[in-house]
Amino acid sequence: MTDFTILGKKAKEAARILAAQDTKKKNEALLSMAASLRAHVDEILSANEKDVKAALEKGTSEAMIDRLRLTKERILSISADMEKIVDLPDPVGEVIEKFDRPNGLHIEKVRVPMGVIGMIYESRPNVTADAAALCIKTANAVILKGGSDAIHSNIAICEALREGLSRAGLPMDGVQLVTETDRAATLALMRLRGYVDLLIPRGGAGLIRYTVENATVPVIETGTGNCHIYIDKDADIEKGVSIIVNAKAQRPGVCNAAETLLVHEDIAENFLPKAAEALQNAGVKLLGCERTREIIEAEEADEEAYRTEFLDYILAIRVVPSTDEALSHIAKYSTLHSEAIVTENEDTAEYFLRRVDAAAVYVNASTRFTDGGEFGFGAEIGISTQKLHARGPMGLREMTAYQYRIRGCGQTR
Amino acid sequence: MTDFTILGKKAKEAARILAAQDTKKKNEALLSMAASLRAHVDEILSANEKDVKAALEKGTSEAMIDRLRLTKERILSISADMEKIVDLPDPVGEVIEKFDRPNGLHIEKVRVPMGVIGMIYESRPNVTADAAALCIKTANAVILKGGSDAIHSNIAICEALREGLSRAGLPMDGVQLVTETDRAATLALMRLRGYVDLLIPRGGAGLIRYTVENATVPVIETGTGNCHIYIDKDADIEKGVSIIVNAKAQRPGVCNAAETLLVHEDIAENFLPKAAEALQNAGVKLLGCERTREIIEAEEADEEAYRTEFLDYILAIRVVPSTDEALSHIAKYSTLHSEAIVTENEDTAEYFLRRVDAAAVYVNASTRFTDGGEFGFGAEIGISTQKLHARGPMGLREMTAYQYRIRGCGQTR
Repeated sequence: MTDFTILGKKAKEAARILAAQDTKKKNEALLSMAASLRAHVDEILSANEKDVKAALEKGTSEAMIDRLRLTKERILSISADMEKIVDLPDPVGEVIEKFDRPNGLHIEKVRVPMGVIGMIYESRPNVTADAAALCIKTANAVILKGGSDAIHSNIAICEALREGLSRAGLPMDGVQLVTETDRAATLALMRLRGYVDLLIPRGGAGLIRYTVENATVPVIETGTGNCHIYIDKDADIEKGVSIIVNAKAQRPGVCNAAETLLVHEDIAENFLPKAAEALQNAGVKLLGCERTREIIEAEEADEEAYRTEFLDYILAIRVVPSTDEALSHIAKYSTLHSEAIVTENEDTAEYFLRRVDAAAVYVNASTRFTDGGEFGFGAEIGISTQKLHARGPMGLREMTAYQYRIRGCGQTR
Repeated sequence: MTDFTILGKKAKEAARILAAQDTKKKNEALLSMAASLRAHVDEILSANEKDVKAALEKGTSEAMIDRLRLTKERILSISADMEKIVDLPDPVGEVIEKFDRPNGLHIEKVRVPMGVIGMIYESRPNVTADAAALCIKTANAVILKGGSDAIHSNIAICEALREGLSRAGLPMDGVQLVTETDRAATLALMRLRGYVDLLIPRGGAGLIRYTVENATVPVIETGTGNCHIYIDKDADIEKGVSIIVNAKAQRPGVCNAAETLLVHEDIAENFLPKAAEALQNAGVKLLGCERTREIIEAEEADEEAYRTEFLDYILAIRVVPSTDEALSHIAKYSTLHSEAIVTENEDTAEYFLRRVDAAAVYVNASTRFTDGGEFGFGAEIGISTQKLHARGPMGLREMTAYQYRIRGCGQTR
């Protein structure tokens, strides 16, 4: 097995060198990495062919094969995305705050790289290039651990990226890939204390849980979204229908899609038949509480339904007697990702905003907007669902730490 | 044993109620808690007497007994400190940023409470009141787990605080104490996923390591400080001497005290004899590298000495051939707490500031300033030595998270 201490030391040393680079140098490296991807299209495609063949032999579903498969166009598009990161503002070095103390000390709070970032992800090989680019832009070294399905593709992509880094005069160990794909390797990476400053798992609930339970390095949990849309008694029904249809059905497999619809009982008889029709036209299967099923046709929703992140064309519906009851339901089942209220009543909207504990809380908009691109961050390494450090979409800025720089003239206590 | 799930549920419910309070209400609660401490001085003192008696019977050192012992004056002083927190600005509700998107969405990034904070600490019973006050000010519920030595004192203080909270009309479960003092209870608290949003261990290196290795809730590591002072070849010798004496000897038992002195070889013969005299006058025992010992009298410093946080009147000294060598030494041995350079050369100072990975980096000042009070934060829950979320002194602001509040008019994707 890889000696993870050596891997960690190499990453830490590369991080030290990266941290000393200016924006221009890091952007040159990104362009060089992008060019290297294009120069190695053939090698990457033939490595990818191996992964696809193995997946087909294993009887992998067509949807999964599609996530795995690279084409020349996809590689060129990955390379172009990398070049776009050049244009994003560099957060490193930004003075977040400065203040002087009565004793004459000048204190600056400055954005600095995190150091070494570990990424554990499943399947899609484009994450390898995306994550590496975001890390280099923020002067972080990265240790990548992709899924076994994409291992040949990842190795080929990573080799190309390292060559690009090296050609730009930066340490190739700024990007490293763990080539073992077993749990022991995952575990070793999660426990690289003193080397990994931040670990980001991206994948299903199982991966996230395994990481949180086993990691000894700091972790940011990402991407579990049991999101709710609450239709208040003062909702505009048309807005409500279009928001729930969008939040549920525009792309049901993503974390910011809605899973449960809560409806105030005063509006339920008016709202539910219209919503049900639109949702069923969009192919959504409905599960409902007793009161819901008195108004529209739906299968029975049990406790388990409210807990489930369906990631599919399925929606749980519950009629609630009050906004407070909606808030209690959300507090009980929310994964702290994105929650929304539809109401024309400003007081109710403010009441809701102040009482929901989630990364993003919406008034009269779809939860589908919780996304780095939609927030204008330009890029995104993941969506945090914990409260420490970063919440919601994590862009370049969220991949940095800060430090205090204090200038004195001999001060002592 | 306590049912920790019930403990967690109570804390979470209290946190929901606290989060909805305004600054005035939280300040009233702080005053009520402070008054309740004063009203229960006798109960607290007699509980403390039990702890002190047990400690004496165990043959605990006089220094430890002193940390444990409460007097009427100490309790009044703890109560007065609690009242001072009323005057600090409330970070909750602060709009950190706001921006509009082309689709008309208004996005606000707002400071919100963390939720439930767990605190694990050793010995001193005043931490019970301090931590509770900082948590209530920031609308966080807190679960406290103090050391077994102070258990009776902690129970009495906690009871008084809960009574104060309740009299102010807030849920007493905003402050809870784990009354078991064994490892099983500590472990249960560390694994209260879904209930504890942030765990802060405060104590020795053993406690911090145990926490990091066993916790499944997010942790902020605090307070391990292997801090260095580097005397550059362009240092002002007088400043250098007074800074190292202050950093080492003013209060050697704290985390921001210096443990190793690095000296550029070009200035070593001039600097070291003066520094050695001043340090020895302050009662500091010197350990040195070979080159150091050619210049001054010192015992031999081995690899282990450079790794050690002495927390005592002992200083390791090493002569280095260059600033880069000093930086390498710091990168190898630093615990990322506080590091300082003494130099009159501005370029060297900037070079050093940009290359040291630590929470606080100083030019011409003592590392002893890394402290919430000295930074002007008014109060401090601990000093973070990791990079996620908060670095260095953690004041009220660092005890909060943020959330995005998004107002729309029916937007969908």
